[in-house]
Amino acid sequence: MSTPPKILAFDVFGTVVDWHGSIVAEMTRLYPQVDGDAFARAWRDGYQPAMARVRSGELGWTRIDELHRLILDGIAADFGLQHLPEHERRQLNRVWHRLNPWPDVVEGLTRLKRRHVLTSLSNGNIGLLTNMARHGGLPWDCVLSAEVFRAYKPDPRVYLGVAEVFDVAPCDVMMVAAHQDDLAAARACGLQTAYVERRLEFGAAHPKDVSPDPANTLHARDFIDLADQLEQEPRPSAA
Amino acid sequence: MSTPPKILAFDVFGTVVDWHGSIVAEMTRLYPQVDGDAFARAWRDGYQPAMARVRSGELGWTRIDELHRLILDGIAADFGLQHLPEHERRQLNRVWHRLNPWPDVVEGLTRLKRRHVLTSLSNGNIGLLTNMARHGGLPWDCVLSAEVFRAYKPDPRVYLGVAEVFDVAPCDVMMVAAHQDDLAAARACGLQTAYVERRLEFGAAHPKDVSPDPANTLHARDFIDLADQLEQEPRPSAA
Repeated sequence: MSTPPKILAFDVFGTVVDWHGSIVAEMTRLYPQVDGDAFARAWRDGYQPAMARVRSGELGWTRIDELHRLILDGIAADFGLQHLPEHERRQLNRVWHRLNPWPDVVEGLTRLKRRHVLTSLSNGNIGLLTNMARHGGLPWDCVLSAEVFRAYKPDPRVYLGVAEVFDVAPCDVMMVAAHQDDLAAARACGLQTAYVERRLEFGAAHPKDVSPDPANTLHARDFIDLADQLEQEPRPSAA
Repeated sequence: MSTPPKILAFDVFGTVVDWHGSIVAEMTRLYPQVDGDAFARAWRDGYQPAMARVRSGELGWTRIDELHRLILDGIAADFGLQHLPEHERRQLNRVWHRLNPWPDVVEGLTRLKRRHVLTSLSNGNIGLLTNMARHGGLPWDCVLSAEVFRAYKPDPRVYLGVAEVFDVAPCDVMMVAAHQDDLAAARACGLQTAYVERRLEFGAAHPKDVSPDPANTLHARDFIDLADQLEQEPRPSAA
């Protein structure tokens, strides 16, 4: 590591919260007739194509809440949910505000916060991320989102925007994510990067390859391991 | 009160933090030859004219950190600080990141957070507000700033932006401030408003008129009184 990062910027869906497990739990409780695992993966599968419609200009700037709803409306019939009334659709769509953190997250963030400024850096919208932080007890110093920069990751404006907001060099920011493509885009902007293993992001039936990429600054099993590793480094100077 | 607000949006300089007292304390410690009271008021007096230069288009979008620095450079000679080296000017300009909360603030916000989503809504930039929250232990759920909306209060985009971010009606948001003009602008956008008395905002030598304006939804002595009053209301439904 060159110098310890002042700012840690966290991807959220999959990295901080277990979207698959949280959605399966909600479906099992409310709609037990639906295959929750397939439903959760189908909903998430619509995410990149929906953002691509915004990037291409086909849709204007759109919050993730609305994209989640478009995708939900698109897949409902495939899962026998085509007759779900409006208020139930709206309530179900808000499940993304109620996703549960992985078990190591609150302890890990609490330790990391002692030395580093912690911000979310998600394509999720500010309201979603704020409600999620209240739900899960996530101790962010600041909620940054694609919504602030009006661009989705992996657009460089999002990664460089963090450095601008805090008036630091890009290398003073470390992107933390469970996705190598997110980290590669951050690295191309000059950020440090930490990969976090979330082998069960897509559920126990679909384990993910979590092989290390030597291009990352750090590779951590979870947020506690990340805190262990960063605490070995000198304390960063003030942001 | 019509219905209890879901979101509380707080003005920061003067309402949450004691800018005058914090700057006087820093000047007394570092530059005891300067009249800290006059210096703090001169610095703050430059604030509205500097924002007016951005509003008029004379300056492009500018963060408050940079406006504070422009004002500092403009008044330095009046206080015998014209020879202050660059690193000291930079360090002094960051005093706005180190302002101390009024004594009732942390306890009041902690109580208010149980029932309401708490966000800053300041013309200060995100980095400044985040560093200040770490310095003072301010338990924001979310750091909203003029920087998010690319407009300064009292522009309606700032007040309405909070309601949009949280996908609620304007009347579900309550603006909390120690300044009647900020509250009047919020009210014109349909927000509820709470005035908080900060009689000593400009120092003990310059007490402020803190008379109630019946147009506000609430009038509170401090944040503890505000928590007392809001806890009398029914619990708001989820944001």
